[in-house]
Amino acid sequence: MAMVCLTDFEKYAEEHLSKTTWDYYSAGADECCTRDDNLLAYKRIRLRPRVLRDVSVSDTRTTVQGTEISFPVGISPTALHCLAWHEGETATARAAEALNTCYITSTLSTCSVEEIVAAAPNGYRWFQIYVYQDRKLTEKIVRRVEALGYKALVLTADMPYVGRRHNNIRNQFKLPPHLQFKNFNGLLQQETAGHKKYHTSDPSVTWKEVHWLQSITSLPIIIKGILTKEDAELAVEHGVQGIIVSNHGGRQLDGTLATIDALSEIVGVIKARIEVYLDGGIRTGSDVLKALALGAKCVFIGRPILWGLAYKGEEGVREVLQILKDEFRLAMTLSGCINVAEINRNLIQFSKL
Amino acid sequence: MAMVCLTDFEKYAEEHLSKTTWDYYSAGADECCTRDDNLLAYKRIRLRPRVLRDVSVSDTRTTVQGTEISFPVGISPTALHCLAWHEGETATARAAEALNTCYITSTLSTCSVEEIVAAAPNGYRWFQIYVYQDRKLTEKIVRRVEALGYKALVLTADMPYVGRRHNNIRNQFKLPPHLQFKNFNGLLQQETAGHKKYHTSDPSVTWKEVHWLQSITSLPIIIKGILTKEDAELAVEHGVQGIIVSNHGGRQLDGTLATIDALSEIVGVIKARIEVYLDGGIRTGSDVLKALALGAKCVFIGRPILWGLAYKGEEGVREVLQILKDEFRLAMTLSGCINVAEINRNLIQFSKL
Amino acid sequence: MAMVCLTDFEKYAEEHLSKTTWDYYSAGADECCTRDDNLLAYKRIRLRPRVLRDVSVSDTRTTVQGTEISFPVGISPTALHCLAWHEGETATARAAEALNTCYITSTLSTCSVEEIVAAAPNGYRWFQIYVYQDRKLTEKIVRRVEALGYKALVLTADMPYVGRRHNNIRNQFKLPPHLQFKNFNGLLQQETAGHKKYHTSDPSVTWKEVHWLQSITSLPIIIKGILTKEDAELAVEHGVQGIIVSNHGGRQLDGTLATIDALSEIVGVIKARIEVYLDGGIRTGSDVLKALALGAKCVFIGRPILWGLAYKGEEGVREVLQILKDEFRLAMTLSGCINVAEINRNLIQFSKL
Amino acid sequence: MAMVCLTDFEKYAEEHLSKTTWDYYSAGADECCTRDDNLLAYKRIRLRPRVLRDVSVSDTRTTVQGTEISFPVGISPTALHCLAWHEGETATARAAEALNTCYITSTLSTCSVEEIVAAAPNGYRWFQIYVYQDRKLTEKIVRRVEALGYKALVLTADMPYVGRRHNNIRNQFKLPPHLQFKNFNGLLQQETAGHKKYHTSDPSVTWKEVHWLQSITSLPIIIKGILTKEDAELAVEHGVQGIIVSNHGGRQLDGTLATIDALSEIVGVIKARIEVYLDGGIRTGSDVLKALALGAKCVFIGRPILWGLAYKGEEGVREVLQILKDEFRLAMTLSGCINVAEINRNLIQFSKL
Repeated sequence: MAMVCLTDFEKYAEEHLSKTTWDYYSAGADECCTRDDNLLAYKRIRLRPRVLRDVSVSDTRTTVQGTEISFPVGISPTALHCLAWHEGETATARAAEALNTCYITSTLSTCSVEEIVAAAPNGYRWFQIYVYQDRKLTEKIVRRVEALGYKALVLTADMPYVGRRHNNIRNQFKLPPHLQFKNFNGLLQQETAGHKKYHTSDPSVTWKEVHWLQSITSLPIIIKGILTKEDAELAVEHGVQGIIVSNHGGRQLDGTLATIDALSEIVGVIKARIEVYLDGGIRTGSDVLKALALGAKCVFIGRPILWGLAYKGEEGVREVLQILKDEFRLAMTLSGCINVAEINRNLIQFSKL
Repeated sequence: MAMVCLTDFEKYAEEHLSKTTWDYYSAGADECCTRDDNLLAYKRIRLRPRVLRDVSVSDTRTTVQGTEISFPVGISPTALHCLAWHEGETATARAAEALNTCYITSTLSTCSVEEIVAAAPNGYRWFQIYVYQDRKLTEKIVRRVEALGYKALVLTADMPYVGRRHNNIRNQFKLPPHLQFKNFNGLLQQETAGHKKYHTSDPSVTWKEVHWLQSITSLPIIIKGILTKEDAELAVEHGVQGIIVSNHGGRQLDGTLATIDALSEIVGVIKARIEVYLDGGIRTGSDVLKALALGAKCVFIGRPILWGLAYKGEEGVREVLQILKDEFRLAMTLSGCINVAEINRNLIQFSKL
Repeated sequence: MAMVCLTDFEKYAEEHLSKTTWDYYSAGADECCTRDDNLLAYKRIRLRPRVLRDVSVSDTRTTVQGTEISFPVGISPTALHCLAWHEGETATARAAEALNTCYITSTLSTCSVEEIVAAAPNGYRWFQIYVYQDRKLTEKIVRRVEALGYKALVLTADMPYVGRRHNNIRNQFKLPPHLQFKNFNGLLQQETAGHKKYHTSDPSVTWKEVHWLQSITSLPIIIKGILTKEDAELAVEHGVQGIIVSNHGGRQLDGTLATIDALSEIVGVIKARIEVYLDGGIRTGSDVLKALALGAKCVFIGRPILWGLAYKGEEGVREVLQILKDEFRLAMTLSGCINVAEINRNLIQFSKL
Repeated sequence: MAMVCLTDFEKYAEEHLSKTTWDYYSAGADECCTRDDNLLAYKRIRLRPRVLRDVSVSDTRTTVQGTEISFPVGISPTALHCLAWHEGETATARAAEALNTCYITSTLSTCSVEEIVAAAPNGYRWFQIYVYQDRKLTEKIVRRVEALGYKALVLTADMPYVGRRHNNIRNQFKLPPHLQFKNFNGLLQQETAGHKKYHTSDPSVTWKEVHWLQSITSLPIIIKGILTKEDAELAVEHGVQGIIVSNHGGRQLDGTLATIDALSEIVGVIKARIEVYLDGGIRTGSDVLKALALGAKCVFIGRPILWGLAYKGEEGVREVLQILKDEFRLAMTLSGCINVAEINRNLIQFSKL
């Protein structure tokens, strides 16, 4: 089968992964309204393409936190890549390096950060982090990823508790015995590395802990999971370097607005003081174009990476990224833009007949 | 099968109840537009969750009419619990007591109020009442429930006549011979306790009869079945203690607005002078959160209780209530609130791109 | 099978009529958008019922053109009743008489007006008329129906040509040989009574011909087929006594607005100077209530009458009318109104959350 | 089977063409959102027909670029007619001539322009053109079509690159060996006439090349593929004679607004300075009426022509055009208009209840 678009990989993954693994990756919280609306929301937004512009030379590059990436799509943190492909996050890392984009490694990786970095030494990476009740544990992890060359910390803000994902509960999903959350190996003495309490933040974490993080690291800090202008404003006030507009792929609070529907109000209040990213529901190059037109500096994809892994490991992830890059370049040029700087709100139709 | 959410109980009930009973419980009036829109309306409302707040300690308690309940979900009055489970309303009462929430007992119970109170002596209960043409009959019932410790009277206002529920008509639904509307035993001399005219109010009842009720009891009076600001204002003017925004689960007038769509205008005119409750369409903790964000003090559920009964009697109702309580706590904390006092309109998205 | 609602009759008719006849009756023009939207539009309108009003005594009567009918639903003109039931329009006439409502007889009846009047001598009837190129033919018909006691003329205004109804074209639908458009018997010498040109108006007809009609009769004239405020205003200016907001059941121009969606603007400009009626899409008592709340004096039903005929002739039509009457009374009282005079725009929800 | 409406031809074509050919014609870009919305958008627009006007004589004629055509529907350029019918574009040309309407011949025809003109010497035709990197090649084509009597050049503006049409990629669609892009025969020495780079414009083409085209020809120039008021204004400023509001049938950028939804804003800015046409989604005479009411001077159809070809070659295309002409005349007269000059915005409903 020719893999032409991201949903081809989704179909492949659904057919080839075990039901438990597929359910784990595809799960949304509760009734999956938010998970599904993340995608549907893009289809409600209409583009206003411009024509007769010289688009013979185009450039999809952008920067995030001052670093150039080859196109404005990075990899959102998702857990447990070894479930999809035996090489797990090392395969993902190599693909991200090959495409020269940003890979946000999940704390809950099944390869260790050392293995990930070794697999793709020149890759550009951020690290997704939780602040645990045991602050020392968090600090140790920060020190390790700093030493390994991670370029930013992405603090997950929307997971004080785990959302109710029905199929995971039905399947009594847990980490298979042959896999480990390897980043905890050696850090946890009396506990197994799969211990549940490291799946989420300490639920008492507030902006105070953001200050604490800032005090122990000089890495840029990016807050992931913001959906309102109020929290966006707080992010700026607390001196972070970026935010990811995210509802955790619809896996946490069901019934939130779609991320693309939240973006406009957030961009409006941020006014370019810090970079605004987005994840959730991106499936085509047109989706990327719409998100950038509405003010995102870069978007991140989660599940499609897992589908790519399930298909062919590193090669599958490369294909997923390459298709999205090709689609984005085509959408950009067909809308009359030759680079990301030319993409703006005028591409979006705001009123209808 | 693991029971993970309320619709799991619905599926179980549909499969295990007789068709006639299932039809009776699930029935809506006419084309069932209102019954169905009660649920769909929640899915059109989007939440704006706040993050990075300390939600390590949370409290789902609230009060209704000054009494504390463990979470803002009570049990709406529904008839004929013995159809779903042999112990009927006594099972429901024990579950409500166990979860420490408010159980509005229906006049049309198949256990007597005496049996219900005996089964769960410490439960917090209100009594749903009709004003009959024979006012003495209503007065006798009021005296009994007062004596039994019921804490409020809930006057059904939207049932001067019974709505047309097609399947009930087709099934020629009637009370099976082994069951009785036990609250009428001893009260009705020449008539059977299943007599049809006690299913509804005297259709001549107006606010005058509310005054009459106030004159014969000191219990708080709550009007159930209000859908407009005009009637909400009248409720305040007539000195009642609360109203339940309700369309009778879509079983009366088909084509009304969904209760959650009616709530905002009513809350806007009431301005906290009395408590505003709501029933209809609540199926998840997010639905509860939305209703509270839009101004409901507490919500009530009807059909899910019957599904719980059909599943496992008291235990089934406890499971239903516990799941909804867990879901509500999770939705509340994931939206950044640690108690019901923090829930407000800012959680709701009012405009879209 | 118990016949509980109008769609029960629809199902019966679809199963028991020949495909050609069913197709003829159910046909809409082109893609049937308007035919279907006539029904869907009601489902988009929400009611705001009032409670705690004395509805113990209710009255569904109204008047049309000064004559009392038992409830605000009359019979719209439809052709060829003998296709559905051997007694044809005489059965319809008897049912209308029995229910004491207004029956608009179609020019294209398969019983003659004389037979219709003889079958139900005390019925209240209007006559639907076309202005033909041969004005004398129209005049002769007017004289006959005047003499027979018809109380108004209903001029079809939306049929200068016949709409494209795909299935009729595919079926090559024509009047079966055993049936006749009996109203033309004796009037047409050299032509068969089924001649096609009597199916529609002379396409040159304008308001001038309305004046001509007024000059030859003292009967009230009602224009059927108006969908805009501009034409409604012209109707008043030309001195007619009423208009029927109609899109011919979606059988003429496809893509028009639904009649209930056209009603408000028309009622707004008419300001009660003449009576405004409506047909199209009425299937329940709630639909009738909505139409009256938005300003219709009375509604008319077309296809449901044919379904009733197909079911049991006169008895079937009586059942259809009786169900709609019962549903309307229930909807009216459940919304807090005891008669049609109390029904007004406040029953309709105009804005949503 | 009687062919009653355009979708009958669609069904026929889907059943009788090879899958590869059907896929090629029906393809939309990416997720086909725009392809499908082009049709759905018409169904969201409601007509306000006027009645009691003399429509006994009607006239569907209009002019485009000063030339009379028999009704306001022309033929949009589509490629590869020989795939659908062995006579290819010569059949299309004869049908267009027979119906006296405008046929925009595609550069990518499988008959040469000489063959097309010879087949229908009196037909009114425009020529769709790309500006190639090799400007001489474009110039040679312009000279040829000028000499052959083509009356305008239609510059495709929305195809600097080919859109991603999934099924074409899966099918590895290419020109079958027995067919040629005959317009390139003799023009290309070292390359095959099917060479891919002649499928699209030079992506560097801008309004400057429009000036160049104007400098080498006196034919009117029409820009095809405009969707915004900004580009419409530029078209006027650059002195072209017309624009076609088009999204290439949804085959280029997916996610654009439907053409009928783009029309109003464009017509508003053009203010009749040049003629505005539209293609995309026209399937019925009501669709044509809506487009004219919203300001299009004429519409063009693409895929329905291919379905007609697939059905019966010239005769099939004639049937398609004749049905659309009949439907348009009927829709026009049923809305109260006797000619295209009477069609205006008042026919469109802009607000709803």
